[in-house]
Amino acid sequence: MARLKTIDWQNDCVKLIDQTLLPNEIRYIDIVNAESMYEAIQVLRVRGAPAIGVAAAFGLYLGVRDFDGGAVGSFLDFVDDRVAYLASSRPTAINLFWALDRMKKFTHDQAESCTDIGIGTLKKRILDEAIRIFEEDKRMCRAIGEHGFELIKDKECILTHCNAGGLATSELGTALAPIYVGQERGVKFRVFADETRPLLQGARITALELSEAGIPVTVICDNMAASVMASGQIKACIVGADRIAANGDTANKIGTYGAAISAAYHKIPFYVAAPSSTFDLKIKSGADIPIEMRGREEVALLGGVKKSVPDKAEVFNPSFDVTPAELIAAIITEKGVIYPPYTENIVKII
Amino acid sequence: MARLKTIDWQNDCVKLIDQTLLPNEIRYIDIVNAESMYEAIQVLRVRGAPAIGVAAAFGLYLGVRDFDGGAVGSFLDFVDDRVAYLASSRPTAINLFWALDRMKKFTHDQAESCTDIGIGTLKKRILDEAIRIFEEDKRMCRAIGEHGFELIKDKECILTHCNAGGLATSELGTALAPIYVGQERGVKFRVFADETRPLLQGARITALELSEAGIPVTVICDNMAASVMASGQIKACIVGADRIAANGDTANKIGTYGAAISAAYHKIPFYVAAPSSTFDLKIKSGADIPIEMRGREEVALLGGVKKSVPDKAEVFNPSFDVTPAELIAAIITEKGVIYPPYTENIVKII
Repeated sequence: MARLKTIDWQNDCVKLIDQTLLPNEIRYIDIVNAESMYEAIQVLRVRGAPAIGVAAAFGLYLGVRDFDGGAVGSFLDFVDDRVAYLASSRPTAINLFWALDRMKKFTHDQAESCTDIGIGTLKKRILDEAIRIFEEDKRMCRAIGEHGFELIKDKECILTHCNAGGLATSELGTALAPIYVGQERGVKFRVFADETRPLLQGARITALELSEAGIPVTVICDNMAASVMASGQIKACIVGADRIAANGDTANKIGTYGAAISAAYHKIPFYVAAPSSTFDLKIKSGADIPIEMRGREEVALLGGVKKSVPDKAEVFNPSFDVTPAELIAAIITEKGVIYPPYTENIVKII
Repeated sequence: MARLKTIDWQNDCVKLIDQTLLPNEIRYIDIVNAESMYEAIQVLRVRGAPAIGVAAAFGLYLGVRDFDGGAVGSFLDFVDDRVAYLASSRPTAINLFWALDRMKKFTHDQAESCTDIGIGTLKKRILDEAIRIFEEDKRMCRAIGEHGFELIKDKECILTHCNAGGLATSELGTALAPIYVGQERGVKFRVFADETRPLLQGARITALELSEAGIPVTVICDNMAASVMASGQIKACIVGADRIAANGDTANKIGTYGAAISAAYHKIPFYVAAPSSTFDLKIKSGADIPIEMRGREEVALLGGVKKSVPDKAEVFNPSFDVTPAELIAAIITEKGVIYPPYTENIVKII
């Protein structure tokens, strides 16, 4: 039993778990060039905003390391070209663009700050910067894990929704990081994982990474969470976040809101765990967070094949919902834990 | 567009919708003998407690109508034999046993009350009694529909969970009956149907019968209900019930409880619609209602084929949950609408 390694830099290549095969097979694949990294991001072999950012940064290095001949100027042009190429692998992944922008800006800065720098040195520094993004992500997860652990250390049974775990980041995840930190310290948690319809990230991914790490996990349908809460087993809920408004309202995977309402009804603390980059302080409240609507088939075709909804019926498939700040006991970030009143306290920490 | 007919007596045989084919095909099948009725009940071609009761009553007639020769005594033995046979088609369907017991007692009573009765007359009376059960069930649904309609007539958008519709009864259903009554009177409702994991009765059955009847229906994953409520669209929720305790606590399909909590949070009235036979006044509160636990595969094998939960993870799969009376705005029965305080008011009506 061991924690799965979502992504790693080993023997001059990137090692990834192929997440398209989960939960049926755990297979590590080697990514040796930009083209295979593009494909891995595009078809979701690697997923989760932080993990995609790290993957893209390494992908840039893989894309330029074989650049041969030419001057620094043409190398920089080639870097820009590879950045644009990798950025087109997924249309809306913020961390993908963020990581590639950072890599591009870094490379140009390096070339400008030192006029006689060689291409070999630039390549090495690009790799170093990718490794820095990787390490920063791991530190972010660990810091969230440490802060979160203090909140839940006496709460042995945790409910989570969707996957904000190690498989979405470089290492410990966000929502699951406190549980892994607890495991390192000999504190035994057990977890209920909402399966998370329609795409089942809870069943397929959260349950996989926790059970592989030796943490007892029980999958339930989303609609069973209230019943399990009523049984008295759940002592805390922790979820991730896609975007957090200035007042603490939190957009996260559809179903988070219902779980938060049920937690409030049962007086169970409901925690959000997310890096500080998740806060969007330009957005005043959840009402202003745009919600992505997705297609009918995700709901109506079970497992992508079996029709479960008659053709004459409509399907409504919002990908996210907004949990109002009043239902959130605390927001756990790498910079510390934020408590209500959020409008006052978020700006003190973020 | 027309309401589907779950079950009917036509041309000396029973006409059933084969519910195993839903929602992909609407096929009516003729049931002409007890053996095919046994099979239809066993493999869920007909389902829903009231509908099964009606089917079994007709099944008994089909089983004895070809009895030939012998005296009344041996005919009664044959009736008992067919009752026992049909009762073994499903292990825990209360209405199945109730209907068959009624048919058996009725037949014996008829034979005893009139010593010179002929077998031909007895057979005819058995058919008449089956038709009476069928008609009573339709009247029960209609009465629930009439009472419920008064509650929701100004609430144009309704959320329901699972299927307590026409396809579970002889005609209008219970939870959906007020909507059909509204349609008859020119009041237009639209419905959000929770898909109802793990077995998707909401997506497959509720959405089918409503859309076939020309009532606009939108299927959502169970975990989307809170979000739709927050949007302000839902004006009332109506669900069925499997068992109601003396204090109004209501056992129904898993997920009902979470929907009721969300409704309360959004101040949306949450109604239970059920025949008076659903009340179990020996049971004081929901804590004493036994909850059936079902197998792993229903949750972990998507559509019965695609593994969605890793082998090392547990699955918890309760088939029902208990919604506490405090979350229920009213209970709609064929005898009238019951309001809180339930402990006082249930005994006045039931």
